[in-house]
Amino acid sequence: MPLIVQKYGGSSLADAEKILSVARRIGAVRQAGADVVAVVSAMGDTTDELIGLARTVAREPHARELDLLLSTGELVSCTLVTMALRELGHEAISLSGPQAGIYTDTSFGRARISRIEAGRVRRELAAGRIVVVAGFQGITAGDDVTTLGRGGSDTTAVAIAAALKADRCEIYTDVEGIYTADPRIVPAARKLNEIGYEEMLELASLGAKMHPRSIELGGVYRVPIYVASSFSDVPGTLIHAVDGPADTFAAEPPPLRQAQGQRTGERGEPMRERESPDAGKNQPDYSPPAESQMEDRIKVTGIAYNANVAKITVRGIPDRPGLAAALFEPLAEAGISVDTIVQNTGGDGATDISFTVSSADLPAAVRRVESVAPQLGAAGVDSDSGLAAVSIVGSGMQNTPGYASRMFRALANGGVNIAMITTSEIRISCIIAEAQGREAVRLLHEGFQLDRE
Amino acid sequence: MPLIVQKYGGSSLADAEKILSVARRIGAVRQAGADVVAVVSAMGDTTDELIGLARTVAREPHARELDLLLSTGELVSCTLVTMALRELGHEAISLSGPQAGIYTDTSFGRARISRIEAGRVRRELAAGRIVVVAGFQGITAGDDVTTLGRGGSDTTAVAIAAALKADRCEIYTDVEGIYTADPRIVPAARKLNEIGYEEMLELASLGAKMHPRSIELGGVYRVPIYVASSFSDVPGTLIHAVDGPADTFAAEPPPLRQAQGQRTGERGEPMRERESPDAGKNQPDYSPPAESQMEDRIKVTGIAYNANVAKITVRGIPDRPGLAAALFEPLAEAGISVDTIVQNTGGDGATDISFTVSSADLPAAVRRVESVAPQLGAAGVDSDSGLAAVSIVGSGMQNTPGYASRMFRALANGGVNIAMITTSEIRISCIIAEAQGREAVRLLHEGFQLDRE
Repeated sequence: MPLIVQKYGGSSLADAEKILSVARRIGAVRQAGADVVAVVSAMGDTTDELIGLARTVAREPHARELDLLLSTGELVSCTLVTMALRELGHEAISLSGPQAGIYTDTSFGRARISRIEAGRVRRELAAGRIVVVAGFQGITAGDDVTTLGRGGSDTTAVAIAAALKADRCEIYTDVEGIYTADPRIVPAARKLNEIGYEEMLELASLGAKMHPRSIELGGVYRVPIYVASSFSDVPGTLIHAVDGPADTFAAEPPPLRQAQGQRTGERGEPMRERESPDAGKNQPDYSPPAESQMEDRIKVTGIAYNANVAKITVRGIPDRPGLAAALFEPLAEAGISVDTIVQNTGGDGATDISFTVSSADLPAAVRRVESVAPQLGAAGVDSDSGLAAVSIVGSGMQNTPGYASRMFRALANGGVNIAMITTSEIRISCIIAEAQGREAVRLLHEGFQLDRE
Repeated sequence: MPLIVQKYGGSSLADAEKILSVARRIGAVRQAGADVVAVVSAMGDTTDELIGLARTVAREPHARELDLLLSTGELVSCTLVTMALRELGHEAISLSGPQAGIYTDTSFGRARISRIEAGRVRRELAAGRIVVVAGFQGITAGDDVTTLGRGGSDTTAVAIAAALKADRCEIYTDVEGIYTADPRIVPAARKLNEIGYEEMLELASLGAKMHPRSIELGGVYRVPIYVASSFSDVPGTLIHAVDGPADTFAAEPPPLRQAQGQRTGERGEPMRERESPDAGKNQPDYSPPAESQMEDRIKVTGIAYNANVAKITVRGIPDRPGLAAALFEPLAEAGISVDTIVQNTGGDGATDISFTVSSADLPAAVRRVESVAPQLGAAGVDSDSGLAAVSIVGSGMQNTPGYASRMFRALANGGVNIAMITTSEIRISCIIAEAQGREAVRLLHEGFQLDRE
């Protein structure tokens, strides 16, 4: 019997009517002959409301306490979905993150899954039940409840799919799939039929609606992830290993009865590099490409946008080995994730290091950096919030000057100033003023003609 | 260092201001040099709201699912109280029922505590923390979350106090203590300075605001329970072992530094009968007492009232041994608690059995009784809801006809018809129409002159 893991987001569960509608969708998959694990987020804006409630009693709610508080949001939705399934005549059971055996580290508010003990979930499935799991939450080895961070239910779903070797993980949300850019910013944005894990990871890291870690896990364990709307039956986007020609993969989910064969990865297998014989077809052209070549052979898949960027610059540090470690270790210990890092060493042997963090982490990051800066002999620490990252993402455009220059030209033509630039194998990102962010997305979407098929 | 367990009810935690006020009260006890475990109920009407939410998706929410849903109410309040304590500068940690090691049986909705593994609570106390425990909830050996039933947080508090051998369990609520009758029904009702476990158990079983099982546990483990208002510092009522003359016990809680000596029971010790030499003073007079004798020597402690009573009568059962067992075993298996039982055997060898259950259990009880009645050869099953139990409670009035007749006269004078009568060692209860219930309480309170000291 095929095994499908589904995830439903908060907007899909905002009220009783939507919960019953989700229960009907889950029930239909079960009726069609599949085992189903449904992972649910908290209803509507519950998480924000709970954070607001916490702030009525404490200016800075303690992270461990906040996690136990926030975990209640998903307990409410998972029990309600289960009750609705039973009301519709299905055998179903709800499990909290701890009951589902989702073990994490102790980084409250942004815990990472360390292992899944799926025995209980397997037993409930074997007993013929639909299993409804509270997303976003787990438990430490010391029996403390943790949350995985914003959007963490995606990661719960993919992790469970990986642990159970599910045939597919379906993420149902309030959008119809993955787009070439945010459709609210770029009305002409196109929905993608499919996308590879690496490209999706870049899009997700840079602002697309999915939890980046869910894509990372999906890539490592080769879990096919299908992203679609919970409100319609319009085909969504399949995130999977894109090795061969794109048209060998269907964008619609494969029929349930044939789904078993789709699973190609095994638990624990490291992320596979693109090395299949077919991959050569996508090899980049290192000379500035003509537009026709680009359209034919190398694609910018989409434009990612992340508005909550802050930048810290440590100026005039005497250059010596171990500098970066001394600077970034205290941030890592504090659980602060550093994104872009740029280091420039001048002629005088002193170096400037700039890096970005999320706006929410800026105060804590500045505190840590300022405490370590004197030991490094730094001349000063500057910080800047109100920034955004705008990125073009596409496999096979690595180090291709044509893309970068075309990106910079599109932004310059629109009067957008670039504060920092970084590139990875499959993306080019520019840090710009947040005030110009949405305009920059539109400029790039148009500049790379993403509105055309 | 003395160890105090405190319990705060939902009305004491209804909003942020009240939560901060509770945190200040808890903090003050800690400052005074005691270890503190605080057990909290859900905020305000949260439990009812969650039940209402469940009914929006299912006509009869599944009991296991409902328990996991309801358990979130106390998780919210215990994390908020902990955050507030930390905001006030105290070291504090919240623990869910499962984290606090509160193990129960699998009777969802009315689970009974089977054992407490208090290791985590002890470790947190040893680390200098105030421990805030979510009341009303526990976990089964099979890792399912349970709730203890309405008012279950009282039982959580007393059970933890017993397991930790605490010096005292303080129940803070929206009333100032235990009264001779419900002050909302009888304005002249008097607050008691103290009361024994057995009398309090009868009052609680019959409608007083405390969870009867908490009193039962308190009696078994000899935990002194102090009931007082969370909104004022007015002295409350001490529930404890009343062996000697009443005035040897102070109604106000003993000072913290001297509290250690108050603990007289050990865990697991069976409930002690009244057998101390002093107890003779309270022995009943078996002749109908004059009013002066009653006032001096034997006291009616209070009037209990419980409005949610339903009655089932199984008519014309051929009398034979094992009849009652065959009738009541299916009810016990369904977790339905039977209160009053009356059996009358007529001259024709056929017997009628009547018994009461809580109104909420009536439909399920009737179903079970009707399924077993044909096998018993019964002539029919009748049921009647809309009833109430009104009781007089007092130690030392067992089998005293004077009390019973005085009670019946008081009710008759007020035009109250009695449907059933039962007596126990320390109470006399009458089942009457609910519509006359409040009037009956007033009649009895006046009839036994409980408004006088």
